[in-house]
Amino acid sequence: MSEGARVWLVPDGYIPKESSGSQESHEAICVLNTSGEEARLRISVYFEDREPVKDIGVVVPPERTRHIRTESLDEAEIPRGVPYALRVESSVPVVVQCSRMDTTQAALSLMTAMAYPVER
Amino acid sequence: MSEGARVWLVPDGYIPKESSGSQESHEAICVLNTSGEEARLRISVYFEDREPVKDIGVVVPPERTRHIRTESLDEAEIPRGVPYALRVESSVPVVVQCSRMDTTQAALSLMTAMAYPVER
Amino acid sequence: MSEGARVWLVPDGYIPKESSGSQESHEAICVLNTSGEEARLRISVYFEDREPVKDIGVVVPPERTRHIRTESLDEAEIPRGVPYALRVESSVPVVVQCSRMDTTQAALSLMTAMAYPVER
Amino acid sequence: MSEGARVWLVPDGYIPKESSGSQESHEAICVLNTSGEEARLRISVYFEDREPVKDIGVVVPPERTRHIRTESLDEAEIPRGVPYALRVESSVPVVVQCSRMDTTQAALSLMTAMAYPVER
Repeated sequence: MSEGARVWLVPDGYIPKESSGSQESHEAICVLNTSGEEARLRISVYFEDREPVKDIGVVVPPERTRHIRTESLDEAEIPRGVPYALRVESSVPVVVQCSRMDTTQAALSLMTAMAYPVER
Repeated sequence: MSEGARVWLVPDGYIPKESSGSQESHEAICVLNTSGEEARLRISVYFEDREPVKDIGVVVPPERTRHIRTESLDEAEIPRGVPYALRVESSVPVVVQCSRMDTTQAALSLMTAMAYPVER
Repeated sequence: MSEGARVWLVPDGYIPKESSGSQESHEAICVLNTSGEEARLRISVYFEDREPVKDIGVVVPPERTRHIRTESLDEAEIPRGVPYALRVESSVPVVVQCSRMDTTQAALSLMTAMAYPVER
Repeated sequence: MSEGARVWLVPDGYIPKESSGSQESHEAICVLNTSGEEARLRISVYFEDREPVKDIGVVVPPERTRHIRTESLDEAEIPRGVPYALRVESSVPVVVQCSRMDTTQAALSLMTAMAYPVER
């Protein structure tokens, strides 16, 4: 069984600067691996005004999901309040969805989008 | 007429722990069956740290929609505040969209995404 | 130039019962027709527990967009607070996106999804 | 490497009239160019009741993202409070996502959708 695609792109990345209430503003890449094999991800982060940080390694076990906060991608050191974008490449087909929680102003707001699958 | 796909994946599932105001935080899988036949769904729920719960049965009659709250999938016992993911397989092509209402902080927030169609 | 698809499906339709503040809760089908020809739409509305209302006619002129509130589809008489779904068929390829504004609780919330294109 | 598509469509464009709090209501087209070549974009804006404004030029450098506020597309002079739609054509394949922040009522709301890729 091979479900999904091996390369995914997310143009709208942004971790809001501020938070309010009990929830912190954040962004997460959610990955689903329905296969019987480990998915070895290589995540690259693109910016508006500097070189991308490429091939950060993350593993998703077989038949598992992982919701990865982008602030936890230490090597990329994504600053808050700065536009960025993501490319996720996987050793096996997976599905990738990217969601943001914004609590800049009182009361939270959510947005989400399935990432764009590059067929190959 | 055969509209949609038979397998759909949703990586970002999450039922918020808390609610406020008149609306309860929840998540729903919305299915549209435009065919003249009953769609027999088998829904599987994936987690970060345990085995998936597979093949929960749900029926969508011909030419009907059903908006299924994920908390109503009794066999899965999806806990609140825990990341999960969904796989929906159907006996006939359908379309699947997944939406979340989050009322953790005063005032509600919504997000939605068309699920990812696995072509076959 | 032929951009988009001729049939689009939206499983998650719902017009919230209540509103607050200056903005009324509503849902809209947004259509873009980049072609040089008039797009003659036939919109069908599906429910959970009754027969669909089919083939409501709407026109989008050449090189125009139209944002159609679903409550304006008089023939369907979509009740507030009831799950529904949409099928949009067009005489020429178009693109369809469906968005909801929910102002049930103070402060509004938005969600949107590109409809699902049925290739044909 | 050729990732994405050369033509993208967004039916639901709308810049809210009002704002509240620290964040201004706005809409942005987010573009990711993973290629080694400059992406020369031509952006066209469609309306409900007048001719489109076509081929506004924007450049995205190689291996960069750009988040472009639609209010910055001077030639289009998109009014606030008016439905519009977008067509983005690029000299090399890119990925396009469109997001809105609405702060009409206290507390902000977000929505986003991957644009629709016209395969060619």
